[in-house]
Amino acid sequence: MRTIRLVVEYDGSGFHGLQFQPALRTVAGVLGEAVATLLRGPVNITAAGRTDAGVHATAQIASFATQSAFPLHKLAPALNALLPHDLAVREAEEMPAGFSARFSAQARHYRYAILNRPQRSALLRTRVHHAWHPIDVEIFNRAARAGLGEHDFRAFCGVLPELGGTVRLLREFEAERRGELVMVRVSGVGFLHRMVRVLVGTLVEMAQGRRDPDSLRAILDARDRRRAGYTAPAAGLYFAGVTYEDRTILVEPHLF
Amino acid sequence: MRTIRLVVEYDGSGFHGLQFQPALRTVAGVLGEAVATLLRGPVNITAAGRTDAGVHATAQIASFATQSAFPLHKLAPALNALLPHDLAVREAEEMPAGFSARFSAQARHYRYAILNRPQRSALLRTRVHHAWHPIDVEIFNRAARAGLGEHDFRAFCGVLPELGGTVRLLREFEAERRGELVMVRVSGVGFLHRMVRVLVGTLVEMAQGRRDPDSLRAILDARDRRRAGYTAPAAGLYFAGVTYEDRTILVEPHLF
Repeated sequence: MRTIRLVVEYDGSGFHGLQFQPALRTVAGVLGEAVATLLRGPVNITAAGRTDAGVHATAQIASFATQSAFPLHKLAPALNALLPHDLAVREAEEMPAGFSARFSAQARHYRYAILNRPQRSALLRTRVHHAWHPIDVEIFNRAARAGLGEHDFRAFCGVLPELGGTVRLLREFEAERRGELVMVRVSGVGFLHRMVRVLVGTLVEMAQGRRDPDSLRAILDARDRRRAGYTAPAAGLYFAGVTYEDRTILVEPHLF
Repeated sequence: MRTIRLVVEYDGSGFHGLQFQPALRTVAGVLGEAVATLLRGPVNITAAGRTDAGVHATAQIASFATQSAFPLHKLAPALNALLPHDLAVREAEEMPAGFSARFSAQARHYRYAILNRPQRSALLRTRVHHAWHPIDVEIFNRAARAGLGEHDFRAFCGVLPELGGTVRLLREFEAERRGELVMVRVSGVGFLHRMVRVLVGTLVEMAQGRRDPDSLRAILDARDRRRAGYTAPAAGLYFAGVTYEDRTILVEPHLF
């Protein structure tokens, strides 16, 4: 058996999220079908991070085991010839037995892109969150620091996990402005459902002066979703990479 | 009569180019219809630069005359509420009588985006030209310098103009690399049909080592389209702005 790691890029607009769902167009479904066609047999694809409908990936990581002897250096181009235009394989590598894109991940890296100007954009309409009111990036970053470290993020969770708790370790949460674009970097070991988008929505409200910028700790302590802010739209979110033992795979969105 | 100048952004993928054509979805057609609806009467829209199907604009400039008293500061948001998602107005200004987006233009600015890596991109599929072979930007820029200044660009022209000759003044033609992206800046007073795309295609061949990098002057002198290179695809081209007497309007594509 060989274990393969793929670095996958997708435009989330046309997918019902990453996870396989019968009769729906999902990233795992379309990718799994192409791999099975190429390697002449079904494979079980594991991905590093589940993404919702509309969420993009510059570097989603997928892994699978196969008995196929298909040459490694031809895997990415051959899959790209089979895959639709909104899904592409950047790289394919062979990994030691036991490697899992999901369980071997030591950190996950997201980017959240906000277009902060009065008028909407025609070119970026499915690629950013359009926020009209001025965002003060200094206020954003000062307020976000209270979220770093290990906390119960239940207040920032969409659907609660079936197993395990809602405590997570947030390692990076910082915004940077370039002209009319604001890019937020979010990294941590693992994330709850919609956690990045609710964190970003809440911090945008603070940075726009619509919510107390010193209230993040109080929202965490309340452990109540109704105390946090809006869920920032899927279109602005990018799954940007994963840290594994051998290396960090991270691809910045081409926005600035 | 008032004269209005609009700065317009569009994703060219869904348009049959800029110029009005009956029964086809064009930028001028869709924009003209929205302006006519809002201002309650037909208007004659003039644009700074014709763009082909698939070509984008970060800052196309349009002008029209109207007798409407519609408040200027509400014009951009009101038009954006009427326009489809792939067309947006960034700004609206009132200009002195006699101003024309086309005839008052002193220089036109284009950007051409190339993704220079082995695998295609899912997120940028309609936004860049994917060129597989490595492009040497230093060779590109050394070779491109021979095209600067006033020349007969007939060898780089698609459909020949009905009126006037094929002599044009090229002011800027330079490539810059950031990672896997190469961005080409092209500026001049006016351009022939497909001139930017044939210039870029020819220079890419030179910068990939597939054509003599010292041959640009000879191609110009030959005045024969068959001597130049391929027409780089529409998806990589952006109409990025115009220089007028009062100011230069220029918006870089959000790609790096």
